Amino acid sequence: MERELTVVGNRMPMLDAAAKAKGTAQFIDDLVLPGMLHGKILRSPLPHAKILHIDTSKAEKLSGVKGVMTGTDIPDRKYGIVPKAKDEYALAKTKVRYIGDEVAAVCAVDPEIAEEALELIKVDYEELPAVFDPMEAIKEGAPLVHADVQKNISASIRKEFGDVEKAFGESDFIFEDTFYSQAVNHAPLEPHGALAQYDPKGELTIWSSTQIPFFLRRNLSTTLLVPESKLRVIKPKVGGGFGQKVDMFAKDFCACWFAMNIGRPVKFIYDREEVFIGTRQRHPVYLSVKTGLNKEGNILAQQFKAYADGGAYNSTAPVMITLMGFFLMIPYKVPNLLHEGYHVYTNKPVGGAMRGHGIPQARFAVERQLDMIAERMDLDPGEIRIRNSIHAGEPHPAKFVINTCGFVDTVKKAAEGIGWAQKRGKLPFGRGVGMAGGSFPSGVSNMSHISSGAVVQLGREGAVNVLTGAADIGQGAETVIGQIVAEELGVLLEDVRVTAADTGITPLDPGTFGSGVTVRAGNAARLAAISVKNKLFEIVSEKLEASVDDLVAEKRKIYVKGSPDKGMTLSDALKAYQYGDHPMPIVGRGSWMAPTTEPTTLLKENGNFAPNYSFMTQAAEVEVDPQTGRVKLLKMAAAHDCGKMINPLLVEGQLEGSVVGGMGQALYEDVIVEKGQVMNPSFLDYGFPTAMEMPEIEAIEVETIDPLGPFGAKEAGEGTQVSPAPAIVNAIYDAIGIDFMEMPVTPEKILKALEEKKK
Amino acid sequence: MERELTVVGNRMPMLDAAAKAKGTAQFIDDLVLPGMLHGKILRSPLPHAKILHIDTSKAEKLSGVKGVMTGTDIPDRKYGIVPKAKDEYALAKTKVRYIGDEVAAVCAVDPEIAEEALELIKVDYEELPAVFDPMEAIKEGAPLVHADVQKNISASIRKEFGDVEKAFGESDFIFEDTFYSQAVNHAPLEPHGALAQYDPKGELTIWSSTQIPFFLRRNLSTTLLVPESKLRVIKPKVGGGFGQKVDMFAKDFCACWFAMNIGRPVKFIYDREEVFIGTRQRHPVYLSVKTGLNKEGNILAQQFKAYADGGAYNSTAPVMITLMGFFLMIPYKVPNLLHEGYHVYTNKPVGGAMRGHGIPQARFAVERQLDMIAERMDLDPGEIRIRNSIHAGEPHPAKFVINTCGFVDTVKKAAEGIGWAQKRGKLPFGRGVGMAGGSFPSGVSNMSHISSGAVVQLGREGAVNVLTGAADIGQGAETVIGQIVAEELGVLLEDVRVTAADTGITPLDPGTFGSGVTVRAGNAARLAAISVKNKLFEIVSEKLEASVDDLVAEKRKIYVKGSPDKGMTLSDALKAYQYGDHPMPIVGRGSWMAPTTEPTTLLKENGNFAPNYSFMTQAAEVEVDPQTGRVKLLKMAAAHDCGKMINPLLVEGQLEGSVVGGMGQALYEDVIVEKGQVMNPSFLDYGFPTAMEMPEIEAIEVETIDPLGPFGAKEAGEGTQVSPAPAIVNAIYDAIGIDFMEMPVTPEKILKALEEKKK
Repeated sequence: MERELTVVGNRMPMLDAAAKAKGTAQFIDDLVLPGMLHGKILRSPLPHAKILHIDTSKAEKLSGVKGVMTGTDIPDRKYGIVPKAKDEYALAKTKVRYIGDEVAAVCAVDPEIAEEALELIKVDYEELPAVFDPMEAIKEGAPLVHADVQKNISASIRKEFGDVEKAFGESDFIFEDTFYSQAVNHAPLEPHGALAQYDPKGELTIWSSTQIPFFLRRNLSTTLLVPESKLRVIKPKVGGGFGQKVDMFAKDFCACWFAMNIGRPVKFIYDREEVFIGTRQRHPVYLSVKTGLNKEGNILAQQFKAYADGGAYNSTAPVMITLMGFFLMIPYKVPNLLHEGYHVYTNKPVGGAMRGHGIPQARFAVERQLDMIAERMDLDPGEIRIRNSIHAGEPHPAKFVINTCGFVDTVKKAAEGIGWAQKRGKLPFGRGVGMAGGSFPSGVSNMSHISSGAVVQLGREGAVNVLTGAADIGQGAETVIGQIVAEELGVLLEDVRVTAADTGITPLDPGTFGSGVTVRAGNAARLAAISVKNKLFEIVSEKLEASVDDLVAEKRKIYVKGSPDKGMTLSDALKAYQYGDHPMPIVGRGSWMAPTTEPTTLLKENGNFAPNYSFMTQAAEVEVDPQTGRVKLLKMAAAHDCGKMINPLLVEGQLEGSVVGGMGQALYEDVIVEKGQVMNPSFLDYGFPTAMEMPEIEAIEVETIDPLGPFGAKEAGEGTQVSPAPAIVNAIYDAIGIDFMEMPVTPEKILKALEEKKK
Repeated sequence: MERELTVVGNRMPMLDAAAKAKGTAQFIDDLVLPGMLHGKILRSPLPHAKILHIDTSKAEKLSGVKGVMTGTDIPDRKYGIVPKAKDEYALAKTKVRYIGDEVAAVCAVDPEIAEEALELIKVDYEELPAVFDPMEAIKEGAPLVHADVQKNISASIRKEFGDVEKAFGESDFIFEDTFYSQAVNHAPLEPHGALAQYDPKGELTIWSSTQIPFFLRRNLSTTLLVPESKLRVIKPKVGGGFGQKVDMFAKDFCACWFAMNIGRPVKFIYDREEVFIGTRQRHPVYLSVKTGLNKEGNILAQQFKAYADGGAYNSTAPVMITLMGFFLMIPYKVPNLLHEGYHVYTNKPVGGAMRGHGIPQARFAVERQLDMIAERMDLDPGEIRIRNSIHAGEPHPAKFVINTCGFVDTVKKAAEGIGWAQKRGKLPFGRGVGMAGGSFPSGVSNMSHISSGAVVQLGREGAVNVLTGAADIGQGAETVIGQIVAEELGVLLEDVRVTAADTGITPLDPGTFGSGVTVRAGNAARLAAISVKNKLFEIVSEKLEASVDDLVAEKRKIYVKGSPDKGMTLSDALKAYQYGDHPMPIVGRGSWMAPTTEPTTLLKENGNFAPNYSFMTQAAEVEVDPQTGRVKLLKMAAAHDCGKMINPLLVEGQLEGSVVGGMGQALYEDVIVEKGQVMNPSFLDYGFPTAMEMPEIEAIEVETIDPLGPFGAKEAGEGTQVSPAPAIVNAIYDAIGIDFMEMPVTPEKILKALEEKKK
């Protein structure tokens, strides 16, 4: 960088860290409105059944109950996150499709009365045959979860790049393997909530624990039949989302509906069990990978087939199976690819976007197979990854434009970090190292023509107000945006106040998903700050008798480049501005959408999917106790190229969370469903990694300066999540010589496998 | 107007009317934060005393009490609304100066415990001699309310325009009379409140029932020693201000101080008694007017002397006595004027800005005397007013620039409305008509170089978000700003959401006082809307193949002027804009400060005080019952020139409120103080006019289109308040032939005067 950075690149605590630590930060559950009622949702106890009749009369008569609603009360408008895949009503209208499906809602003066009222609602069901496995569900004659969806396949993709058959013909080696990636829950610390208030002039305001305020507005608008102009979505503090808060839920709709119909504010807060059974989870996927390589170990072709268990509804189905396929072509060169993906309905909890959104499952299969191939071809797993790496500037089968790529470096540095050369294949039985690579987009290039916007106001004393539509869900988006603005305006981070997100105040933004926030909203905020700075510099340049181009704003001062003495404080500059009767605050507006090589809307066409792409390699060292089957992750060396790190502290936070998430998926977590019933819907039973399981995590920076990222930044939130799990399972192979093809790799499975191996 | 208006000029209910009517609008008292504490203030029971010692130990020990503070805890920084007249501490440090002066504050888990704790605070006072009348207070040897202010005169002005002595020498008639205008209370329906929250990262947020969020921020900053950049002031709904909420109060300071020091949110709500004794009131003023006229009844010179009873502190003292003088030169030509004004401390409740801010008192004296002069010179009161009227475009002694002036028309139309020709001097004993004129500025031209700013965002479906710093305190400012923006963008009022005022989000604005909001913030919002429209028109003009200048936006459509068929819906235009990848929402910024003829800062120099000036005449008909002394106001015909009425419904609301306020002052209201003790600090005792006393009110529009007002608008909030009281007292003269020189004209005074007259 030509310019020396003083705020960007620094390790800084999140703007709201202290408030969260001390308990003053306000989440939905902290919000109280006068006359507020509390809502609860009645959920189906059956996996598949017709609703014959609902008798709400007793519930309505319970003292303290102010409203009861069922599916018959609501407009015949389905909702969903993908326009053509909408298949869900806020409350079931005619049948229930999984245990947990929403049947009725109640609101009352306190949550206990609402809970009691649920028990007074009598639902007559006619139970239907149910199906719980996607491979069963696609068979002829299987029960149909949605009557109009044949074979229960609600979304599918079959896409070929290059000529796969020809390439397999030219391959020296062909390997085919199948894998299974299980269901895990996002389990954000804050359960989902919503609070709605209806203004008698016809405006509806909803506070929601959402990742996507503007899309939630749209979903509420189309289902409640209230125009977007009359809907205001406010996102207070959100205690984690990980993709689970990308969807609209019954709590959002019902809070609004009650507020509109009763005229009092209504709040819904899900309990932990509801989060497990009634929101979203990472799709369980059956995956088969066929890979053809030449003698040198270069991948010539890959054929990929995935059956995702979608549960009862679509959520992001078409997007998920598509992402899974397109991102097989990065970080490795796969010149010929045939991807088939199926999203299959079952009578089970619903799959949705979760950190990585389909890519972790694919990565598990591909990275596991790559290690198996390396073994079979007698290549080093690091070497085969380096040999197949894509590189910046090279053409890409799907037309991705990769301007920066530090992948090869991440392989080398992760290997170095874990002591690969000394350890791989050389540790005693029960100890091993493994690695896995990955890549992720920094958002989507053109998301329905929705740009990110920001308004920056620089006021007296150098106080900065930033309005952004970006939704901070705990990852630190507001801090990152604040740093970018502070850097550009030459103020300190503490001078910046970020307001987000409130569709009634802040500019449009697609929201938090696909890891686009830093690049998209960061660029928008930066442009807004530059516009403010330009206005101020015009006046300052007169005062300092210097050209605008020679001015630098830094640490609350403005001075002539190279002559720190020739300058003035920002505060004085602003006084001069104001007392010259220029309008205060100085207001700037910025807007950003990634340039596209051709019009792509969510992968319908090939094209540059994202403004840029992150790369990473994670290398794990594990210890397997052959007596107990227990696996301990000793260390993860995580080398990652997320461009310029705006805030290394936050990047490391993302990385550490990702490693723990990957460790959970690889070793512990599993949403166990028996006949449609989730058996472990609590923190106690589910089995997250705890502080006791924490490995050493070494974060290794491979910095590239991306031309499209703000100050060179790329995403750091999801890419970090795609490779820890396969790295761990690969390390288990190195430790005990067993190839696990499904997760989680539990002690039971290890003991069983060791026993079989003995035979 | 060249352009046809579709939103501006319409009678429209306030944007928040329904919410207020149904009780969902949120005032301070409705706000609840987790862990919120409740504060109460201990007030002095003595009018003047040294504080020897305060023992708070018992209060601190009371269970539930979380904090106790006294004047010794707070920084040695005085506050006040006028920089050089700051004379008040949030809590008294060494002595108390009136009954109600703030001595200590407590916060506790509920208001009752806080109240109980107040009683446990033991204050040792040394009582000092006190003074209760300004004419006593200015005498040598009178007790000094503030030791360093000689004769208790805390502010004074002596300003001569022209040559008064010479002009009196040339006068054919000279009249000299003295008047007294009593103390009345603003009595907003919502008592004053504040709620403060401290974010551990160092940001302080205060929700306050304030008229001036940005000035409150400054006052809090200088007294709490917290930089403005760390202070955020949010104004929720405010239930009336009338000038009483222009000052900072102990509740603001103490809520912040407790929040910072305890780390929990703290709320203060004053009770009605505190509003009466511990906030502000309209200054009681002794006024003497000497007027010289020629034979034709033209005023040649006026000498004005005013002693205002300021109570214990300054508040707006210097401004008030100055306004009083400058506005003697409008609406009448007074070519030679000598104004002497004194603000005098007494040990009584504090005077402050109140609707009209010094001008109603002056108007009472001048308008009463004008009638007395007319009588003595045998001129018709209407005629003498018309003869002396100023006119648009004429030079002004203080250099006011009067571009539009409908005063003469208001005299004629008010007279017509009340049936002047048929009634004046012709009604039976006990019935009479009277009139009074007035004028008022639309804000201040250059208020410390603080411009009004607005940000307008036009989003999908034509939804408009307006950010303005203007503080709606119930008068409908947000509605008026909304109409202006809707008009300019060609949308409906219901499409517009106005956010105001929040110093952390909305642009700078001086706030609500001096009736500048419509012109100042209205112009800023209009400019922001125009900027948005221009951006949109650029794209639309391509689509419609028409010049930008030929486009019209109206009723959610954009079309070519004169060809309504050649156009498109706004919604389609916005889609075209967005899908052309232009950034949504379209953001525009506007800023406005009145052009000044020369640099004036609050009347220190002569110059154009305001961007424009409203004019009005009110004509009253009264019935006086000689048996009981009771006066009934039968009708008020109010003719007013407030430029273009943006919303006639709201203008009439202002007018009706003003008439009732004037009636209250003329006939009923009086803050009765005995030895410093307010004797009637409740709605029951104070004696407001009620629904039973409501007169017929005829609003008569005299529309001028002012070149500097948005769409030609001028102020309508305070000018309407300056003449009802003298019009009523003038009508009483017509009814019973008695000239009352002081208000209120109570039944007792009438009976006494009738009795004396008999003698």
